[in-house]
Amino acid sequence: MSHSPSRDTVLCISLAGRPGTFGVRFHNHLYQQLGLDYYYKAMTTQDLPAAVAGIRALGIRGCGVSMPYKEACLALVDEVDPSAAAIDSVNTLVNSAGHLKAYNTDYLAVRQLLAERRIDPATGFALRGSGGMAKAVASALRDAGFGDGIIVARNEQAGRQLADVCGYRWLPELQDRCPPMLINVTPIGMAGGPEADQLAFSETAIAAAERVFDVVALPARTPLIRAAEALGKPVITGLDVIALQALEQFVLYTGVRPTAEQVAAAVAYAREG
Amino acid sequence: MSHSPSRDTVLCISLAGRPGTFGVRFHNHLYQQLGLDYYYKAMTTQDLPAAVAGIRALGIRGCGVSMPYKEACLALVDEVDPSAAAIDSVNTLVNSAGHLKAYNTDYLAVRQLLAERRIDPATGFALRGSGGMAKAVASALRDAGFGDGIIVARNEQAGRQLADVCGYRWLPELQDRCPPMLINVTPIGMAGGPEADQLAFSETAIAAAERVFDVVALPARTPLIRAAEALGKPVITGLDVIALQALEQFVLYTGVRPTAEQVAAAVAYAREG
Repeated sequence: MSHSPSRDTVLCISLAGRPGTFGVRFHNHLYQQLGLDYYYKAMTTQDLPAAVAGIRALGIRGCGVSMPYKEACLALVDEVDPSAAAIDSVNTLVNSAGHLKAYNTDYLAVRQLLAERRIDPATGFALRGSGGMAKAVASALRDAGFGDGIIVARNEQAGRQLADVCGYRWLPELQDRCPPMLINVTPIGMAGGPEADQLAFSETAIAAAERVFDVVALPARTPLIRAAEALGKPVITGLDVIALQALEQFVLYTGVRPTAEQVAAAVAYAREG
Repeated sequence: MSHSPSRDTVLCISLAGRPGTFGVRFHNHLYQQLGLDYYYKAMTTQDLPAAVAGIRALGIRGCGVSMPYKEACLALVDEVDPSAAAIDSVNTLVNSAGHLKAYNTDYLAVRQLLAERRIDPATGFALRGSGGMAKAVASALRDAGFGDGIIVARNEQAGRQLADVCGYRWLPELQDRCPPMLINVTPIGMAGGPEADQLAFSETAIAAAERVFDVVALPARTPLIRAAEALGKPVITGLDVIALQALEQFVLYTGVRPTAEQVAAAVAYAREG
């Protein structure tokens, strides 16, 4: 991958407590493939207000926002898109001539995946998790018309709160319930984590489910996804989510929508890093 | 020229009212030649305090400062190097873990050129000009021990002020005086300007001079420099100044000092842009 810097190169950045490599590789790869005079740089900060003011003042076109800045950004921008307002969480800033608008492309990606796969909103589901990403997924389900849901979370306060906000029920454990759609939004199954080899739902629940959705992206084929695929169930993976949210960021920054093949190649490249 | 962006790429920028191409091409070319994981981006701003605070908050390593920000930067940094304090003008910011230090590498470059060429401080000179760069050159002469100087400037207020600050005389015109060193710090002879084909000093003064110094860099061989070279006089050109000031910036940002050959190649590359 190469880039020839020019005076007019457009700069996009990311802000994360611990910057990763995915965004740098995904965006810069697509910039090059599409011949766009853009450059993407991963950053961190100890002073979020000054960093966001600096994005505005320096004409930085876009900024991916990760933990721990996703909520605090809301108060620092000029406009909040419904995608971020829906969940009080920002993962994308777009700077248009000094006007900063906040988006949440995780929320947008989940909305789009639910629509693309033509999942009937009457489908009952259990969503395991109660953190920031669980809020994005549960809110996307609610806003897509899914009315019959259970938030499964050991943390009663966070679980009840998320369930109440979205109009779902809360349970500490799924027990012997078998809803048609199972959604994991916890780190269970994540490589390197303490539960890397565990299933986020029981084998009985998986066998009874119509489809499975896991937001864990590393690996994309978690134990949960592998178990569902072995039974021939349709799945949505965390890779689908991060590829789509990164694509939506890319479109917001550049106004250019790459082909599905270009996106797939950029995701594959980004995951090698 | 190519660059492979990584998560850890170090960002340097410039701030100018009208960003040029020299810095982008000079610095990025040397980064690549030396295998440094750095990237240089030209920027502008409408909000200098927020831009400088953003440099600090975003961990941008260095910033070249051009018109109209060179004086206003002084109040926004944590430390001012003597090179910038000498002339109340900044052309370089260095960010060390959130501590911003201001330098003036134009001043440093002129000091270094006067030393390298072994010019006797007893040499009398006439310096034509009274703007920001004239202040850098006159201050460098004063601090190098040059005591016998005339500031030639049509603007009496600016000319007298500069002369007073440095302990030189002011004259509106050189008339028939013929000091041994002639220094042009006006746009006379600059390509594209209204006086592109004019001499900054009279043919008589040039013929009588021992050496000639012109800060105009575009072209490096101004009418003044060409006239002096035709008479076999030693010269210092604007290209010598910008190459050296950019090199000093490069060393401040990276801690690496390229060879003279590498610098010459980067300057040649930068001037093609």
